[in-house]
Amino acid sequence: MAAPADRHPSASHYDIVIVGAGPVGLMLSTCLARWGYKIKHIDNRAEPTPTGRADGIQPRSLDLLRNMGLKPAFMAHKPARVYEVAFWDPTKAGKGIVRTGTWPSCPSFIDARYPFTTLLHQGHIERVFIADLEKNGVRVQRPWTIRGFTSNEKEDPEYPVTVSLEHVDGTAKENVKAKYLFGGEGARSFIREQLGIGIKHKDPIAYVWGVMDGVVKTDFPDIKMKCNIHSEHGSIMVIPRENNMVRLYIQIASSTDPDFNPRKTATAEEVQASAKRILQPYSIEWERVEWYSVYPIGQGISDKYTLDHRVFLGGDACHTHSPKAGQGMNTAFLDALNLAWKIHAVEAGFAQRSLLETYEPERKDVAETLLAFDNKYAKLFSQRPPSGNEVAAATADTNTENEFVKTFKESCEFTSGYGVAYKPNPLNWSPSHPAQSHVILPPNQKTKLVPGRLFINADVTRVVDANVVHLEQEIPLNGSFRIFIFAGRPSLTSRALSDLAAHMSRPKSFYSTYTRQDLTSVSHHERHNPHSLFFTLCVIFAARRPDVEIARDVPPPLAAYRDHVYADDRWDRRVPDAKACAHAKMGLDEDRGGVVVVRPDGYVGIVVALEEGSGTVDALNAYFGAFCSKPLGGTQAML
Amino acid sequence: MAAPADRHPSASHYDIVIVGAGPVGLMLSTCLARWGYKIKHIDNRAEPTPTGRADGIQPRSLDLLRNMGLKPAFMAHKPARVYEVAFWDPTKAGKGIVRTGTWPSCPSFIDARYPFTTLLHQGHIERVFIADLEKNGVRVQRPWTIRGFTSNEKEDPEYPVTVSLEHVDGTAKENVKAKYLFGGEGARSFIREQLGIGIKHKDPIAYVWGVMDGVVKTDFPDIKMKCNIHSEHGSIMVIPRENNMVRLYIQIASSTDPDFNPRKTATAEEVQASAKRILQPYSIEWERVEWYSVYPIGQGISDKYTLDHRVFLGGDACHTHSPKAGQGMNTAFLDALNLAWKIHAVEAGFAQRSLLETYEPERKDVAETLLAFDNKYAKLFSQRPPSGNEVAAATADTNTENEFVKTFKESCEFTSGYGVAYKPNPLNWSPSHPAQSHVILPPNQKTKLVPGRLFINADVTRVVDANVVHLEQEIPLNGSFRIFIFAGRPSLTSRALSDLAAHMSRPKSFYSTYTRQDLTSVSHHERHNPHSLFFTLCVIFAARRPDVEIARDVPPPLAAYRDHVYADDRWDRRVPDAKACAHAKMGLDEDRGGVVVVRPDGYVGIVVALEEGSGTVDALNAYFGAFCSKPLGGTQAML
Repeated sequence: MAAPADRHPSASHYDIVIVGAGPVGLMLSTCLARWGYKIKHIDNRAEPTPTGRADGIQPRSLDLLRNMGLKPAFMAHKPARVYEVAFWDPTKAGKGIVRTGTWPSCPSFIDARYPFTTLLHQGHIERVFIADLEKNGVRVQRPWTIRGFTSNEKEDPEYPVTVSLEHVDGTAKENVKAKYLFGGEGARSFIREQLGIGIKHKDPIAYVWGVMDGVVKTDFPDIKMKCNIHSEHGSIMVIPRENNMVRLYIQIASSTDPDFNPRKTATAEEVQASAKRILQPYSIEWERVEWYSVYPIGQGISDKYTLDHRVFLGGDACHTHSPKAGQGMNTAFLDALNLAWKIHAVEAGFAQRSLLETYEPERKDVAETLLAFDNKYAKLFSQRPPSGNEVAAATADTNTENEFVKTFKESCEFTSGYGVAYKPNPLNWSPSHPAQSHVILPPNQKTKLVPGRLFINADVTRVVDANVVHLEQEIPLNGSFRIFIFAGRPSLTSRALSDLAAHMSRPKSFYSTYTRQDLTSVSHHERHNPHSLFFTLCVIFAARRPDVEIARDVPPPLAAYRDHVYADDRWDRRVPDAKACAHAKMGLDEDRGGVVVVRPDGYVGIVVALEEGSGTVDALNAYFGAFCSKPLGGTQAML
Repeated sequence: MAAPADRHPSASHYDIVIVGAGPVGLMLSTCLARWGYKIKHIDNRAEPTPTGRADGIQPRSLDLLRNMGLKPAFMAHKPARVYEVAFWDPTKAGKGIVRTGTWPSCPSFIDARYPFTTLLHQGHIERVFIADLEKNGVRVQRPWTIRGFTSNEKEDPEYPVTVSLEHVDGTAKENVKAKYLFGGEGARSFIREQLGIGIKHKDPIAYVWGVMDGVVKTDFPDIKMKCNIHSEHGSIMVIPRENNMVRLYIQIASSTDPDFNPRKTATAEEVQASAKRILQPYSIEWERVEWYSVYPIGQGISDKYTLDHRVFLGGDACHTHSPKAGQGMNTAFLDALNLAWKIHAVEAGFAQRSLLETYEPERKDVAETLLAFDNKYAKLFSQRPPSGNEVAAATADTNTENEFVKTFKESCEFTSGYGVAYKPNPLNWSPSHPAQSHVILPPNQKTKLVPGRLFINADVTRVVDANVVHLEQEIPLNGSFRIFIFAGRPSLTSRALSDLAAHMSRPKSFYSTYTRQDLTSVSHHERHNPHSLFFTLCVIFAARRPDVEIARDVPPPLAAYRDHVYADDRWDRRVPDAKACAHAKMGLDEDRGGVVVVRPDGYVGIVVALEEGSGTVDALNAYFGAFCSKPLGGTQAML
């Protein structure tokens, strides 16, 4: 969607140089390649990860991968799915272990499409992205490394970054110019070190972990579940894997040990012997060990994610945590996604450059919150095992809350990926946002949508073909803002909808201001961006599908999005008495609807009432005016 | 699973020769290749279908394709999905057309996992099968044709069929010997003609159809729906397709026309002009025509599907019908599946050869019923358009029935694929079956499972890994009988379950009699066939998952199927008050359960109570004894 790659002054000029082809680098590269950017992507490994390493895909990350059209490629590997976590503890008699409880890894109070964690080794994951990149003409250059870089916007305001790249064996060198540089090189980031950015250790405790993937023969009944096992002989975590494999994590040393040594290690045989002791009275034998590794790790967050908003860091270069949290790859994906669409918004001419300043605070806050929860949660568990009542209260959709239940619920939201909550800023409306209007709907008991949090999942029926669809998946990850116009009952809102359309069509509206330059040559089959590359619109009526007639009910320009017109006529168990369940789940009035702006990454920006007159569009102009590149509408937008 | 391919006397000896690589031949070939048979598969076309032809996959066929693990490969082509059918008729004023109604193509009274028809062109479908075949070492030999064959069991009881094959240009010839020959060559079957089998025309009316696939620009609002359009200028059927394509069927001539000529034709331009007139007041223009064809067709059924149970016919070679029914490919799939597992059961030594005699009556009856319904349904529509009340009654899950509603419901069952009902025979228990016992549960108001009809869909939780799964999909299409042991409440049935296990383990039981010969070398990872290649077992408890403990609740040999132990603890909207919804959906007692035998193709064979003592296994011995190859259990089995 951006200008073609040949718009650059020379072959050695790029939009971005990406260093590292792990999850964070590949997600960033994949998004930007799809949106038309010219990318130099290098990795110092000759091949993608051959085995082992990160493997847990959160429920919410699977939504994201589906939104990118990549889910089938992941699922083709038949990954293991973790629906429940089992806890095993020493028996009271002191001999062997006994299951003390299980609970859902994504309990039903989280409205997840895929209430499970997907386990698949990092190599498969990387290869899915690499195949997609190649479709878009990007090939990761291997094994190459970065030797140095400078960034100077004054010297070259357009391509301020100069990067020196080299084949790892020194046989070839390349100097390139770029608009951006991204360091996704992992915990030992060269770029971070060169920038002089330090790491803050949130938890002073460090650990040495042993991790082993293999195929076993065992009578331990929960070998296909995720298990936290504590025994008199030590602790172990069990993670099921694809192809009958199982991963075991064993803590080999902790900085709380009297004789702690971060270089302490253990052989595979020692770890197996240890696992055998821990699992007693059950037996375990290895048929095959696929991967074994020992590594020291501590919780840490880098002080900055960028210094100049040209050279950025993300993923493990910014935050490290214990593998138990299972968050590394998922957090990396979201770092990349957050940065990708913001770079796109700026470079495509839609947003002010200052939009990039929201990357670090949004993502660093998430990492900090996550680590804080990780500690709190671990502490709560180490104190005592939860009671049966607590488990029941924690996993049900109720309001019974004690400290344990509250922490458990918050943790589940985090570990599922649905708990990310970006704080107020120009993108995430709050009472202190420049946009002020009585039509703006702040989150309250009724409006369940919260700016900075994910849009809520809902089923609807697409009008043109009567397909039952997932509304939140209807717009692909195309870099556009998603405007969901919940239109309530057509008989009550037809005037408000016409007014919305009319005011959107005015010259200085957010919508008209960003009309496609190639408008006259756009195919009539274009579903998502017929008028503007920055917005995809959806209209959802609180009506039965056969009762919606697009030609009659949807005014232009909204009617151009005919594949995005829906009937809110599907029953939902979460709102069993609602007539328009999608409206109800969002907390919007089933008669009067409302307009929801969702950021390109799926997080709610603002919720506005659908009113007759200009109020709705005025509020949207003011919202977008807070960060977009051109003046919009009335004076509010100029704040 | 059969003996290895090199068990044949020579390289030119095969288990089966399959002629024709359309849907019926490919389904047969794919099944038998997976089960280890040696196949010679030829087709007289140089390439798979390049475009056009059959394209509708029924809801039930999608279940089947999923059960074969092929669904993702189909869905990767992003097929169109038909959820509703729209009817358009002349306006009362006599100018143009107006929508007179729409209804679901698979209404909610049908308990379908995928309540839509999947549209994908036959070439994509064929290639998915071809890729799977190649994984199993079978390559379709093209362009080759059959020049003659003989079948003589007396001369060669093991390989009675001799087949002469030839390259279509005559440059190469091959004579092969085989146990079976299958003709899946389409309506003009050479094998059928050689056998002297005639075609009976059920409906004396013949038609000439024009069919056109293309990309259009139109303001007709239902272009992405399936539409039946009647106008003063003629009739047309609209079928949405993948890649923004649409298929139009236009009836060019009917034998009821005064000047009927089955060779009547029309050019693509004439059909387009006709479509433009019919669609008025809407406009339609073609951007591209992908495929256009005119063909005469009538309803017909061949008199026999086989003469000697060595040379078989299936698919279009046996039945032809109007394309409007959209049944050709789906019926072909089921012909092939029905034959495939029966050949396997006989050749692998499990069933008597007479089992093959059930192929023709089962499949011919389905074809006849289908054509009869097709006629009845078409007549009902041609009489008058249905009223709104009738549509509401027909699509709801109610008992309001008039002739229209009744016919509509039956037709929906047929067109969805869920309506196939095989009549009583040794496989499908009835009161006249040799197996007689008070523990056999005949279908009644309570027991919803009917021998000869499909097993009912239900969600359950797998115990070993807490995955929520579709019970009916848990056993892959492996050629084995599926024995679903609904075990009710463990506290009430533990004795009955132990007795079942004990009697199954006795030497002459159906289960012990067919123990795997390679039992000692079977991997402990084997999920489906740890003991027998002819049975896969599932045990479903009416309990919450955490309350099931396999080591305690499941006696051997059932415990060997640990990946097939389930908790019936998922809520189902169809039985909202049930505690054990899968039990309830089957109509089985939630406390006491029952045992359901499902044929390898997914149709119910017999339902038996789960009782203490030997009664349950006695009844199963008697059931399997009616068709299996060795004497079983007590005297009943010898009938």
